[in-house]
Amino acid sequence: MHPARFTTKTSSDGVTEQDFTIGEVPGVLWSPTSSSTPTPLVLLGHSGNTHKRTPAVVGLARRLVTDGGFAVAALDAPGHGDRPRSASDERRIAALRRLTPGQPIGPVVERLAADIADRAVPEWQATLDALLELPELEGPIGYHGMDTATAVGMRLTAVDPRVTAAVFGQFWSDTLTGTAERITVPVEVVLQWDDTRIDRHHGLALFDAFASREKSLHANAGAYQDVPAFETDSAVRFFTRHLRRTTAA
Amino acid sequence: MHPARFTTKTSSDGVTEQDFTIGEVPGVLWSPTSSSTPTPLVLLGHSGNTHKRTPAVVGLARRLVTDGGFAVAALDAPGHGDRPRSASDERRIAALRRLTPGQPIGPVVERLAADIADRAVPEWQATLDALLELPELEGPIGYHGMDTATAVGMRLTAVDPRVTAAVFGQFWSDTLTGTAERITVPVEVVLQWDDTRIDRHHGLALFDAFASREKSLHANAGAYQDVPAFETDSAVRFFTRHLRRTTAA
Repeated sequence: MHPARFTTKTSSDGVTEQDFTIGEVPGVLWSPTSSSTPTPLVLLGHSGNTHKRTPAVVGLARRLVTDGGFAVAALDAPGHGDRPRSASDERRIAALRRLTPGQPIGPVVERLAADIADRAVPEWQATLDALLELPELEGPIGYHGMDTATAVGMRLTAVDPRVTAAVFGQFWSDTLTGTAERITVPVEVVLQWDDTRIDRHHGLALFDAFASREKSLHANAGAYQDVPAFETDSAVRFFTRHLRRTTAA
Repeated sequence: MHPARFTTKTSSDGVTEQDFTIGEVPGVLWSPTSSSTPTPLVLLGHSGNTHKRTPAVVGLARRLVTDGGFAVAALDAPGHGDRPRSASDERRIAALRRLTPGQPIGPVVERLAADIADRAVPEWQATLDALLELPELEGPIGYHGMDTATAVGMRLTAVDPRVTAAVFGQFWSDTLTGTAERITVPVEVVLQWDDTRIDRHHGLALFDAFASREKSLHANAGAYQDVPAFETDSAVRFFTRHLRRTTAA
């Protein structure tokens, strides 16, 4: 097992932020600056073509710490942020760029995301192994990620029983319905009703496929980028409901 | 205009509850026991075969008062609660009872609900006329109702511009998509994904038909009666977002 190597550490507004690496993988850990009890951990995946400190990730991370009292970890996905792209990444991205308007983008993104997930799932598992050694962290574990991070997180959740609640969405369903059928933990699924790139039937099919007894679909009017701010509030409440059941608040 | 005639008045836990009649229509008004500013009003419709003090209505009413600071009004729908059934109600209900297992119930309930709505919409409008005369109440107005109360509330919202935000759901779509197309205020739509009586396609079609720029669909796993308790929290937050925009908190 690779231990987490922590480098920089800063604190502001009650949130401590630490950079770390686990093997070659760079990550960030946000946690309450003052907490007396071990804290459940929420993993945040970033969407395609962004990185571990993209504003959506940082904003949600800080809300989960300040409003939920959680610790939060994000990693750069393979080929993203501070990490090199593989030859396979380059080929997949070149294929994306060759698409002409009107050509379906879903199958190309799905293959790229599956490639990323093959590498990212073991990285997340190694991250859990390492971070759960820290006395201030404990299970249960949550996962939140849209887009490519849904393709990664669904595969992680399907194979790792430490993940006990997850928020997914905004991705195609063709390569993931079989994965959804193996997921039984509570899930919240987000889709944008007027997304012109990812047709709503993908989100509805994914939602239908989850084997979870507790699952909620949140569909909002608007395009891909118009997810309402109140879905952040909803995610914080979702993890509070599901990760605080068995731990001290 | 019929004024509201108030009869009994009780208070507990910060919530004042007053029975009233407007003409022949009996209602209940819940409001904050101590409030210094005029309060937005949320109208609560009850589902078919229940009444203005059914536990779902009372529970949501008290939450809206204590957590949202709203005033809340409920009426007995025509033919429900303390009110006599018309000959037409009796015929519709007899038709419902004659259904054999396997016969589609939707069209029969839709006709019954449309009959009720024809009478209930003017009653709600008269209620608004009367209650908004009270100094402690003001617009904007919200509406919340599932099932038959969706059939009533959608028709009310389509014709009365005082209603500026609404939560609907758990009803068939065949008689209501045209109404949805005339509704432009923010809506939250609730459906149960595994409802065996109201197929999910009805809720999805209604949600799609609303002309509202801001609309959210909340679909949850489970049968008709299994709407999660957190949808009550969500409704309180929805009205807080939309009715508190222009008034003092």
